[in-house]
Amino acid sequence: MTEKLVLHEFALSGNCYKVRLTAALLGIPLERREYDLMTGETRTPEFLSTVNSNGRVPVLQVGDRFIPESNAAAYYVADSSRLIPTDRFDHADMLRWMSWEQYSHEPNIATLRFWMGWLGEANLNELQRSQMGPKREAGNAALKLMDDHLKGRDWFVGGEIGLADICLFAYTHVAGDADFGLNAFPNVAAWIERVTREPGFIPMEA
Amino acid sequence: MTEKLVLHEFALSGNCYKVRLTAALLGIPLERREYDLMTGETRTPEFLSTVNSNGRVPVLQVGDRFIPESNAAAYYVADSSRLIPTDRFDHADMLRWMSWEQYSHEPNIATLRFWMGWLGEANLNELQRSQMGPKREAGNAALKLMDDHLKGRDWFVGGEIGLADICLFAYTHVAGDADFGLNAFPNVAAWIERVTREPGFIPMEA
Repeated sequence: MTEKLVLHEFALSGNCYKVRLTAALLGIPLERREYDLMTGETRTPEFLSTVNSNGRVPVLQVGDRFIPESNAAAYYVADSSRLIPTDRFDHADMLRWMSWEQYSHEPNIATLRFWMGWLGEANLNELQRSQMGPKREAGNAALKLMDDHLKGRDWFVGGEIGLADICLFAYTHVAGDADFGLNAFPNVAAWIERVTREPGFIPMEA
Repeated sequence: MTEKLVLHEFALSGNCYKVRLTAALLGIPLERREYDLMTGETRTPEFLSTVNSNGRVPVLQVGDRFIPESNAAAYYVADSSRLIPTDRFDHADMLRWMSWEQYSHEPNIATLRFWMGWLGEANLNELQRSQMGPKREAGNAALKLMDDHLKGRDWFVGGEIGLADICLFAYTHVAGDADFGLNAFPNVAAWIERVTREPGFIPMEA
């Protein structure tokens, strides 16, 4: 890889951590540039016109080009590495878990974590408040689905850690921040422990 | 490809259409098995234990194995074809648009289409009703972002049609079903027209 990689991020976002953890496990250097979400630093005209018209982080900068969306950025970092299965079925199965994470896991667990830990429950509007129950139910269903899948398996796809594990790990291991009890999901808890023992592992706060 | 491909689907779902359109453009045969979402055919114990524990379609069956999630299933069909860029950046950029579609486009445009066209506005519950305004706003923002990106471009990534275009096309071309006006997005309208002229193109109803 010849082009410099810069991660535009908010470090305590699990989506941003996916990209950092991927790079760490592979020993790939990554420059970091932090944005304050609460003061709208990712919604400035300059950010929108240059970095990401969608106004979100993470964005991976590759030379002078930009890749928004956490899963795509993490894939770029991991491309052709041991974290991406070469088998056609396993590769699609990895994308399946990454897609599922963005659709059925993140909007529930990560959103509740953001509402409770950053916005604060007292500051939620009525629409957000009315979504808390459904999001908690869907978040627990997501954890249950993961727990069932991990029965008798070490990793989500194939026999080794891969990008699906990293993408799922990011918000699962901090689900407690949104009062999700991981004790009810022992296979998930064991898998989290397994990820943290990988050579090169870095915690979210690193 | 030696293993038979079977698409478990609900034909009028844009997510299922993504997989069919991908196969059609590549001339790959696909068996189809239709489920009635409204009577819960994808939530039966048999479906959940065999096809998809997440209770959703599409699911691509490859021999006796299953790939849920539309983008992953479409990727499996298109793997190593002209629809998947080989350049590392373009490949990640394709995944970026596919991820964006599932996170910022589908939950707004496809969900409103389902609520208005299948459930019926009169049958929505209070939580759904309160989300209609925000989803319409976010859906229009998604169409605007696409329209801006397509300014001076024929396709979402690189110079040829690719999987990102197919995944974005599925719900964009029927956004009118949810009363989104595509006249306000001329670049999107021209791109839709362009997709329909591709050799092998099939309409959603085919």
